[in-house]
Amino acid sequence: MNQRYPSVLLENAVNELASLPGVGRKTALRLALYMLRRDTGFTDNFAAALVALRKNVKYCKVCHNICDDEMCGICADPRRDHSLICVVENIKEVMAIENTGQFRGIYHVLGGIISPMDGIGPNDLEIESLAKRVADGGISEVILALSTTMEGDTTNFFIYRKLSPYDVKVSLIARGVSIGDEIEYADEITLGRSIMNRTNFNG
Amino acid sequence: MNQRYPSVLLENAVNELASLPGVGRKTALRLALYMLRRDTGFTDNFAAALVALRKNVKYCKVCHNICDDEMCGICADPRRDHSLICVVENIKEVMAIENTGQFRGIYHVLGGIISPMDGIGPNDLEIESLAKRVADGGISEVILALSTTMEGDTTNFFIYRKLSPYDVKVSLIARGVSIGDEIEYADEITLGRSIMNRTNFNG
Repeated sequence: MNQRYPSVLLENAVNELASLPGVGRKTALRLALYMLRRDTGFTDNFAAALVALRKNVKYCKVCHNICDDEMCGICADPRRDHSLICVVENIKEVMAIENTGQFRGIYHVLGGIISPMDGIGPNDLEIESLAKRVADGGISEVILALSTTMEGDTTNFFIYRKLSPYDVKVSLIARGVSIGDEIEYADEITLGRSIMNRTNFNG
Repeated sequence: MNQRYPSVLLENAVNELASLPGVGRKTALRLALYMLRRDTGFTDNFAAALVALRKNVKYCKVCHNICDDEMCGICADPRRDHSLICVVENIKEVMAIENTGQFRGIYHVLGGIISPMDGIGPNDLEIESLAKRVADGGISEVILALSTTMEGDTTNFFIYRKLSPYDVKVSLIARGVSIGDEIEYADEITLGRSIMNRTNFNG
């Protein structure tokens, strides 16, 4: 439907909002009209926060996590185990793992996974810099915490081979039936793997 | 869940995005990370369009529709029937009715409907200015096209009484079974009304 807008300003704003992923033109119009109901300060602060993020964002020189300084809070924390690196795709996974409270090591953010369909090869990711961190020494274990998809598996294997010259343990996060899942509804591959990789019951 | 963000800039941007209606914190984070993947020009244009809309928006002095000038394109169009006013809640309804291509009159945008639950009374809406337009003369018919809810009915009745001193026809858009609806699933009130208000079949 070729919608006619009563105002060019409104149309521009709707176009910009609708360019965000997952935001359609109806939602964009609703958001634009919402902003018109708020005072100008709301839109000013909203716009300024987004511009400041994009303009001033920094990436940690060690792990490539998003941060406000040269080094992120995790890499700069002396209480973390700096010999243990957890490799993740993006900052969202860092936040998810931090929320579990189960990991006391540091991270390495790849910036994605190898995905030929999307034109993302190993050189588009922070794999070389991971190898350098390991080569520089002081790392005892690298935990691969990527998506359990074909792309994730490909990336896992590529990193494993890349790190094979070095004296470092490479491990994979456990795969199995999710906590709270009913066995009946678990898919066959997950269920098969979870039987193969069974652990001792420590009742 | 009290999410910890690795960057204050990111947290600010997520807070602003999540303050929009219908946008949760997960979506806000996804949108913020999307902006980080685009160049700075994207965020600059995005922010500028929203600020410009809020700062420079104008409302038509005749019908209160959003516009870029003193008067909206519809009110300024001499080919429209200026004796026929369609009363709507908001600009979204103007756009919806314009899209039908069935209306050649002009509009009057109330800016909402009477809703005591939300603290919106007649004086918060453009009802007085509608009465003035009618009092000024030249209007033959006022079509009420408000929501078919209790609030809409209340507002319809209020406007009807407000316009009763003037020699103007007040009409209501047709209510009935939606085109494409199966009678089986139509609600009882709609179905009852559609039988009462049946029209001649012009086969």
